[in-house]
Amino acid sequence: MRDQFEVRSYDGAGRLGKLTVPRSDVTVETPALLPVVNPHIQGVPPARLESTFGAEILITNSYIIHGSDDLREPALEDGLHELLDFSGAIMTDSGSFQLSEYGDIDVTTEEILEFQHEIGSDIATPVDIPTPPDVSREHAEEEWETTRERLTVAESTDTGEMLVTAPVQGSTHPDLREQAAREASETGLDIFPIGAVVPLMNEYRYADLVEVVAAAKRGLPEDAPVHLFGAGHPMMFALAAALGCDLFDSAAYALYARDDRYLTVRGTEHLDDLTYFPCECPVCSEHTPEDVRAMDDEERHRLLAEHNLAVSFGEIRRVKEAIRRGNLFELVETRVRGHPTLVDGYRTLLEHADQLEATDPITKDSFFYLSADSARRPEVRRHHDRLARLDVPDELLLTTGEASDRYEESWRLVPPFGPVPRSLSDVYPLTAEVPEHLDRAAYEVAASGIARLVERSPGTEFTVVHDGWPETALVTIPAEVTVYNANEADGDGLS
Amino acid sequence: MRDQFEVRSYDGAGRLGKLTVPRSDVTVETPALLPVVNPHIQGVPPARLESTFGAEILITNSYIIHGSDDLREPALEDGLHELLDFSGAIMTDSGSFQLSEYGDIDVTTEEILEFQHEIGSDIATPVDIPTPPDVSREHAEEEWETTRERLTVAESTDTGEMLVTAPVQGSTHPDLREQAAREASETGLDIFPIGAVVPLMNEYRYADLVEVVAAAKRGLPEDAPVHLFGAGHPMMFALAAALGCDLFDSAAYALYARDDRYLTVRGTEHLDDLTYFPCECPVCSEHTPEDVRAMDDEERHRLLAEHNLAVSFGEIRRVKEAIRRGNLFELVETRVRGHPTLVDGYRTLLEHADQLEATDPITKDSFFYLSADSARRPEVRRHHDRLARLDVPDELLLTTGEASDRYEESWRLVPPFGPVPRSLSDVYPLTAEVPEHLDRAAYEVAASGIARLVERSPGTEFTVVHDGWPETALVTIPAEVTVYNANEADGDGLS
Repeated sequence: MRDQFEVRSYDGAGRLGKLTVPRSDVTVETPALLPVVNPHIQGVPPARLESTFGAEILITNSYIIHGSDDLREPALEDGLHELLDFSGAIMTDSGSFQLSEYGDIDVTTEEILEFQHEIGSDIATPVDIPTPPDVSREHAEEEWETTRERLTVAESTDTGEMLVTAPVQGSTHPDLREQAAREASETGLDIFPIGAVVPLMNEYRYADLVEVVAAAKRGLPEDAPVHLFGAGHPMMFALAAALGCDLFDSAAYALYARDDRYLTVRGTEHLDDLTYFPCECPVCSEHTPEDVRAMDDEERHRLLAEHNLAVSFGEIRRVKEAIRRGNLFELVETRVRGHPTLVDGYRTLLEHADQLEATDPITKDSFFYLSADSARRPEVRRHHDRLARLDVPDELLLTTGEASDRYEESWRLVPPFGPVPRSLSDVYPLTAEVPEHLDRAAYEVAASGIARLVERSPGTEFTVVHDGWPETALVTIPAEVTVYNANEADGDGLS
Repeated sequence: MRDQFEVRSYDGAGRLGKLTVPRSDVTVETPALLPVVNPHIQGVPPARLESTFGAEILITNSYIIHGSDDLREPALEDGLHELLDFSGAIMTDSGSFQLSEYGDIDVTTEEILEFQHEIGSDIATPVDIPTPPDVSREHAEEEWETTRERLTVAESTDTGEMLVTAPVQGSTHPDLREQAAREASETGLDIFPIGAVVPLMNEYRYADLVEVVAAAKRGLPEDAPVHLFGAGHPMMFALAAALGCDLFDSAAYALYARDDRYLTVRGTEHLDDLTYFPCECPVCSEHTPEDVRAMDDEERHRLLAEHNLAVSFGEIRRVKEAIRRGNLFELVETRVRGHPTLVDGYRTLLEHADQLEATDPITKDSFFYLSADSARRPEVRRHHDRLARLDVPDELLLTTGEASDRYEESWRLVPPFGPVPRSLSDVYPLTAEVPEHLDRAAYEVAASGIARLVERSPGTEFTVVHDGWPETALVTIPAEVTVYNANEADGDGLS
């Protein structure tokens, strides 16, 4: 099971992976973006998605093809890859969206899975029930029960080499999402879309989104490929990747373009509001907003869709490069400054630092302290855990200044990490680059590191020498510790 | 004087302007980036800088042309615009850089200004002394005295319609920078380069850079066009623009390319370290790092230079769009998360909030609270100043909850602003978007707003109802204020 997905490296819970898609014999690098292709209207043809934007996989809707006299026969006869002119992997949706919009569809999971198989889909989807946010737990549980039954049907349907997804529902109830994820993973199906989160994203409810995704991740095995269904805005790819999402799909590139909306990694702009294109993609390098406004609908929408695709695929490359280099948190720190609700998402993510820490590599390129929020990164937490396991002498000086031989040992004191034995000084993350104008959060977390060490070392006599730490940090240091301020006369206690 | 520079709109101290360059009859929109063109080697030809990257102005070195037998005659005969094949404005440097590198040059200010005039430069530079950072005040003052004398020479040289710059020196002594700026502006010369800051930028000393620029700005009239000499890295354009810099010049795009270095708005990468291009420019959309590594030197350096130019000009467009929309601080909040030293630069900038506030528009698009640093933005400071001028009733409730008719008046309490009279609730910046997971800084600054209001209203009885503010904020509220926590039983004092 799931030998088709291989994680190559981690950064926090974010990962670079390879999804092997046996039916079309292709390998998809993850995180990957699946452009949504409407089988009726192809503003940007799939062949161009592949050649110009580097799309390795796309998603289209098998239910629309099934219901269309124009498309059904060619799809059955020639197959999806020929119909769409795309040689990469093709995932298909099942009509669940139509079900959620119109309340009813005319196929069963078994029928639509068979149809997806017949038209040559590489990754198929059963008819799950996309339970919206904020419904009662009872309601969400009932609908999950139905989805779960359909996953059982999917599991027992013969679909050959075609991969089949097991959507995770559960509305905004984290415990139910976790349970749903566990039950979905027990089916033996292949890929795990986290469903019905589009309303959360449309309403900028990123804190709730993070809770839902973090809950689903807790219920899934580490090696399960996760698809964040409907996540198509590049402003949140880095945050979602940091949670461990592997696949995104974007209808936004086309839908927004048709509404003259322009995606950026910092949010959405309307073409009418722009005087300068805040982007360096080929479209934005060759045109001005004024030019594009003057074009006819078709040309304008095509160019906006191409910009939207360029920035979306560009952001996926930035995310992949960041994971590879171990600076995904640094990218997230930047991205969440696009909107206050993304800051909420990040702060919620940091509440799950333990979950992120489990797969975080021991060593990375560098740690940049970039805001008060950085003090809560999983690397800091891990260092505090490590403090509890270190051998401590009977007499220990913790100092922001020079070592002193008046003590048995001297350790450095480094905000936001706290006590750092000399042996770890050159080891990630203690090599962190930190601003000189430090926020109090850095000192406070460092002081809590001291408290952690002191609590675990009842036999040791501690002396702390700091360089003017704020009172809010100093109050955290246990009362039995002797504390000096090196900035005050004779304050280092060493003269 | 200086009727050739017109500020069209402000955001903080950042501004959109128009620089009229009479000699070539062109108008340059600012902030503008001047690519540095080496008259000997033109990796990316000036005509292409103009057509592909939209350069309206460039800078080249008149001293190199003066000293080159191959270039001097054609420049004198055909003029610079013909020599370089560039129809925009051309600024020329004077040999000051060579002076600082080699200790001696063989022209005087008068000679080189005349030469610049003869070859058709639009904006000329006298031979100033680029005093490096960290020298003694005495040394810096002595050198400034020499530069100042040369500015006097420049002032009295007949240069026709050619604009002439008055470089501001003074090393890392803010008071001397301020004095130098004042004296430079008194010359009647046209454009004010802030000189010799490249070592600060090379060493990532952004806090020191901000101090130097803020000091120079204090010495200059509001309408003086300011050039940040040698500022060519897109990671700091937004921060420098927020300080009120109008012109940047970039040799980095070419120098870095020759060293296989790759500019991004978050820092510098080396081509060898990249697996994915974290960018959507035409070069990065059409190639992979692997492709580019395999190319010969010339092709590789040309493509990297084109990428570096694309991202630099793209960032200038983003900065201009942000100033126009009034969200330059939001862009800066994002950009400074590229490196801890940029965070230092931003925190230093915020120490000069009064300087930024002077030209900040009363109303803008929206205020996004994006980090604890946002609490120190000039808009917050302005609101606190406004609080001191408001009419206050004898009995006033300040509340994070509902108004109450048990008090003469009820005002809202909005972190980070503090007290907000109902009449201002819908007015910028009190319409701010703020995360739900708020940092303590927001509460603390709000509490200091309460203190400000209370101090100015000795006859008023204040009641504060908050929704669980942290102790570090509550301690700031003056003792005579009655404070309730609405989250505690009967805590609102209203039941």
